Amino acid sequence: MPKVSTKGNSMPSSPIRKLVPFAEIAKKQGRKIYHLNIGQPDIETPEIMLNAIKNADIKVLEYSHSAGIESYREKLAGYYATFNINIDKNDIIITTGGSEAISIAMMTCFNQGDEIIIPEPFYANYNGFSAAADVKIVPVKSYIETGFALPPISEFEKLITSKTKGIMICNPGNPTGYLYSREELESLKELVIKYDLFLLSDEVYREFCYDGKEYVSVMHLKGVDNNVILLDSISKRYSACGARIGALISKNKEVMATAMKFAQARLSPPTFGQIGAEAALKTPKEYFDKVQKEYVERRDFVIEALNKMDGVFCPKPSGAFYCIARLPIDNADKFCQWLLESFVYEGQTVMLAPATGFYSTPGAGINEVRLAYVLNKEALKMAMICLDQALKVYPGKTN
Amino acid sequence: MPKVSTKGNSMPSSPIRKLVPFAEIAKKQGRKIYHLNIGQPDIETPEIMLNAIKNADIKVLEYSHSAGIESYREKLAGYYATFNINIDKNDIIITTGGSEAISIAMMTCFNQGDEIIIPEPFYANYNGFSAAADVKIVPVKSYIETGFALPPISEFEKLITSKTKGIMICNPGNPTGYLYSREELESLKELVIKYDLFLLSDEVYREFCYDGKEYVSVMHLKGVDNNVILLDSISKRYSACGARIGALISKNKEVMATAMKFAQARLSPPTFGQIGAEAALKTPKEYFDKVQKEYVERRDFVIEALNKMDGVFCPKPSGAFYCIARLPIDNADKFCQWLLESFVYEGQTVMLAPATGFYSTPGAGINEVRLAYVLNKEALKMAMICLDQALKVYPGKTN
Repeated sequence: MPKVSTKGNSMPSSPIRKLVPFAEIAKKQGRKIYHLNIGQPDIETPEIMLNAIKNADIKVLEYSHSAGIESYREKLAGYYATFNINIDKNDIIITTGGSEAISIAMMTCFNQGDEIIIPEPFYANYNGFSAAADVKIVPVKSYIETGFALPPISEFEKLITSKTKGIMICNPGNPTGYLYSREELESLKELVIKYDLFLLSDEVYREFCYDGKEYVSVMHLKGVDNNVILLDSISKRYSACGARIGALISKNKEVMATAMKFAQARLSPPTFGQIGAEAALKTPKEYFDKVQKEYVERRDFVIEALNKMDGVFCPKPSGAFYCIARLPIDNADKFCQWLLESFVYEGQTVMLAPATGFYSTPGAGINEVRLAYVLNKEALKMAMICLDQALKVYPGKTN
Repeated sequence: MPKVSTKGNSMPSSPIRKLVPFAEIAKKQGRKIYHLNIGQPDIETPEIMLNAIKNADIKVLEYSHSAGIESYREKLAGYYATFNINIDKNDIIITTGGSEAISIAMMTCFNQGDEIIIPEPFYANYNGFSAAADVKIVPVKSYIETGFALPPISEFEKLITSKTKGIMICNPGNPTGYLYSREELESLKELVIKYDLFLLSDEVYREFCYDGKEYVSVMHLKGVDNNVILLDSISKRYSACGARIGALISKNKEVMATAMKFAQARLSPPTFGQIGAEAALKTPKEYFDKVQKEYVERRDFVIEALNKMDGVFCPKPSGAFYCIARLPIDNADKFCQWLLESFVYEGQTVMLAPATGFYSTPGAGINEVRLAYVLNKEALKMAMICLDQALKVYPGKTN
């Protein structure tokens, strides 16, 4: 029997996925589970987007252009202009979700064994894409005490070797919710210039910046057009994860020409998703205002509830819809499994993501969990009561 | 300025793509172009599929399961059963087009530098996927004189090294239209058993088998369940290339578990495409009968017209909707470019795919072109007249 590849064997399986069978058993036992474990928003997709798909007049469902439907790319450039990001349609390749944008960017920029420095905790699937591209992620640790601010540039510099080829960030951050300041991004700019590195930035949560704080894109940085690659997705901003539409954006012509070869090999991104995405560009401002208000309320409630619990610490994030909390527990993987296997409060429990899956450094995040506040306030209220009760009785409690 | 990867640099650009700018100029000049160069069918997508998408009652466009919507996979197993392929939903991972199925299969099965033997001419995008996966394609030559029948197994064996890890075929074949016989597949079976190889089979044209000839799948072969991987797509059978829905199918549990890790990293295939694909399973038999009748008529017309032209030879294919013709020309790349740049007949010209892009051996296919008979008969008639006229005046004519 032929053996699978070593690359396949080295593909990581995240701690969240290991919990899924336990969640299935809990469900079969009739327990209600509050899912704070994944970033699948409950917000309705804009009607203007869904209607465009319903009303599409298609006789032959053809391939689109490999870079995406031209009219969509043109209008999408207009969307970015509203964020003061000045690009044209030729700087954009439409991808099958943000996932494919990351995957193509990695294959375009990095050789086997090249190193890419990423502040940890980071989005767990970066591990999968880097394993597939044979790229080595070198984590630089950020800390819950500072709300996961950018580590000092000196910490990055300590990690730079002859193999270092890029830096990757997520801003606003999944899983931290941290929003990088202009100063932090300017310091990254100096770093990538100094060492001639690519700067990849996953900015899929740009619509989710709170408290009037400024969203600064890597595309706003001056003089690093050839270093910067923006990775994007419509999944979160229009609550349209199933559309599978993202984008890879860069002013670096060589990067775009190379990325295009990968895009051509896979023929085209999904047509219906693109039709919806093009229409979604007309989503009224009120939609985002309402969504943002909702998330701010959820965040404020969750953060306050968490910090009121005995021994719990959770910094207040300024973006996205995640937070990482430190809990008074021995082991987050065990705790999250115990919540599904052994805990019940009034017929209910809560599913969380162990933060260990977001750290690359062994042992890091062992007493931290990520919560996605993607449920309505009533559900969040019950979820927080459950968690508080669980922490009172968990056998591995540490204080 | 940081440099793109060597992998990116090594990604092939197909000869067809090089022709695109010339086609654009010809169009601007007002010439009508008959596109026989790509496999984008003109056949209408089944209404039952498009209506299911129109009528989908979606409020939140969520991720689907990473392996694809469960009900779709269940029903899809039923579809395969009608072809005497006995699998269940757990043997199927729904992919983003057949492209992703190929890409995930390659990453799942092969290590960097592993060799995969593929009969040439083969689908040009296999080059892109293998470059992305760092796999080396070793071509084994098939010949136009035999209609591109499977090369003798002894020719495969000559190419087997310690690095050989798999064989890949396309059946019915793109670009050849050749349909492998049961004997040919049985001989491949013995080969993969003898050398413990994976056998990847791209069978996206199974609905397009003509003249009552039998479609034999690698899934029909006994005793090689752990070697065989079926790569599939709905693009051709429902004329739904833009849906981007394919499938990776295997009974090898280790392969499926590994492929699933790649599938999870990219989250999910497109939701609307899957909704359409599930509904399309109810496409009435009459649809396929009509389509098949249409393609047989087109094939018969094109093959006869080609073989009537001076110095042209084109074997009659039994499947898919392509044929490869040998022309009395010096160089197919030059000829195809000349058709777009310099030739006009009654305001019209024809766009063909130089066969050089389907061969991996340098110089092979130099006087061959691939034609996709995806236009209606009236258009095909004019296209054949154009080609005949062009061959009479082409400066690089060889007879």
